[in-house]
Amino acid sequence: MPFRAKYYVYWADTDAAGIAHFTSFLRLIERAEEDFYRENGILHYHAIAPRRELFITYTSPLKRGDVAIVELWLDEARTRAIRYRFRIINETTGKNAAEGYLVFTCISNEGGELRAVSCPEELVNAWKRTLSVS
Amino acid sequence: MPFRAKYYVYWADTDAAGIAHFTSFLRLIERAEEDFYRENGILHYHAIAPRRELFITYTSPLKRGDVAIVELWLDEARTRAIRYRFRIINETTGKNAAEGYLVFTCISNEGGELRAVSCPEELVNAWKRTLSVS
Amino acid sequence: MPFRAKYYVYWADTDAAGIAHFTSFLRLIERAEEDFYRENGILHYHAIAPRRELFITYTSPLKRGDVAIVELWLDEARTRAIRYRFRIINETTGKNAAEGYLVFTCISNEGGELRAVSCPEELVNAWKRTLSVS
Amino acid sequence: MPFRAKYYVYWADTDAAGIAHFTSFLRLIERAEEDFYRENGILHYHAIAPRRELFITYTSPLKRGDVAIVELWLDEARTRAIRYRFRIINETTGKNAAEGYLVFTCISNEGGELRAVSCPEELVNAWKRTLSVS
Repeated sequence: MPFRAKYYVYWADTDAAGIAHFTSFLRLIERAEEDFYRENGILHYHAIAPRRELFITYTSPLKRGDVAIVELWLDEARTRAIRYRFRIINETTGKNAAEGYLVFTCISNEGGELRAVSCPEELVNAWKRTLSVS
Repeated sequence: MPFRAKYYVYWADTDAAGIAHFTSFLRLIERAEEDFYRENGILHYHAIAPRRELFITYTSPLKRGDVAIVELWLDEARTRAIRYRFRIINETTGKNAAEGYLVFTCISNEGGELRAVSCPEELVNAWKRTLSVS
Repeated sequence: MPFRAKYYVYWADTDAAGIAHFTSFLRLIERAEEDFYRENGILHYHAIAPRRELFITYTSPLKRGDVAIVELWLDEARTRAIRYRFRIINETTGKNAAEGYLVFTCISNEGGELRAVSCPEELVNAWKRTLSVS
Repeated sequence: MPFRAKYYVYWADTDAAGIAHFTSFLRLIERAEEDFYRENGILHYHAIAPRRELFITYTSPLKRGDVAIVELWLDEARTRAIRYRFRIINETTGKNAAEGYLVFTCISNEGGELRAVSCPEELVNAWKRTLSVS
């Protein structure tokens, strides 16, 4: 089952068009990713998971005060990277607001040097559980 | 009793010093203000309450993953403006993170023209309840 | 020739990894788009050009103080949408930092109602000039 | 003479009221502070200058496309802290947009431990020059 979190849209997320700025959608997605890790007790991995690729389509707006449901689930676990898919649903209007995917790589910063490493098993397993049926 | 809300500190709130950027504290405060209005059914007033004055002292940092408690309470209800006080407590460290006050004015945008107006009674009353003992 | 603009990376653009947050790259791209319109005297069109699709790959970091060169050029002018490509070069390190594309649609908000319209000729022509050789 | 820098106001700086969000003013001020240090060859000090106190009054709005002039000048050089004053002028409307002051402390992070230190002479001298007449 996808990881699922709900967030309000706040004033600071909006722009002069009166709706959430296109980068605010991305902050919601990263926030959900962090909450997913926190729930799994592995928040520390997020700091060593630089974003590598992002694709998103915007399908309907989010207004201040709207409730955004963010869903995340594993798309592909590679050796040194994970690709997850996301969807944002505007619960207030009942419409899909956005969907897409994000790829991050797994790095180590031990010894002060950054290098790509195999993604930690714990992290991979947490993502795999987003695909199980219960 | 002050209005009180809890928020996680997220990665997007931090800067290269590894802690929440000084403007992230202010977004937390505004977020609490919006949640306070929402709880009182008067969120719409926030859009016609431009910020006029702000004072804040920063006393200890907020790290990613820390829980920030934001407290808001009325300081002074003037005819066309409200000054409220705030405090941010880092629940994770047990330390005060920041405190200060914010003044906003009450405006009307009816007829497409902005002008200062008396603050709506409903709004003033909500703020007054932050001073009651229960 | 692509539109080309240079921007410093600031402290507020960074996160706890000590480098520009992945959403900061997108603000740089939008900033370049606005500066491109301003230079062409058509900045007003940006307010009626909602983002529809975005793809970006991140290839190397931007640090605070680095100079980012942002290049934009037309990829495809559809009737009611424009897709442009972008590249961010880190002038300080000499490396490519990111590249991708962005699709926006053209809308009208006349009469208070939003609807898709043909992209204004002036806007399309400005984008077409990013493909000319001089 | 105060340090003086000019910046455009961008779409990402605005909120649903159609004007720059109150935290955008603060990012402009910090941006000017960084440009001031860069011009003096001392940008590295900004990373060890945590914000301690901030006061700002907002007097007129900044719209997207407006030119904001930010002025900074020394108010008081204490042993371990500096207080500078700032003013933002909306060049497009000719009106003052905001003014106030900011206090930062000087710290050292040598040996991985943060502690308050005397502000570097170079930094203090740069600020003192904002008070000279030429």
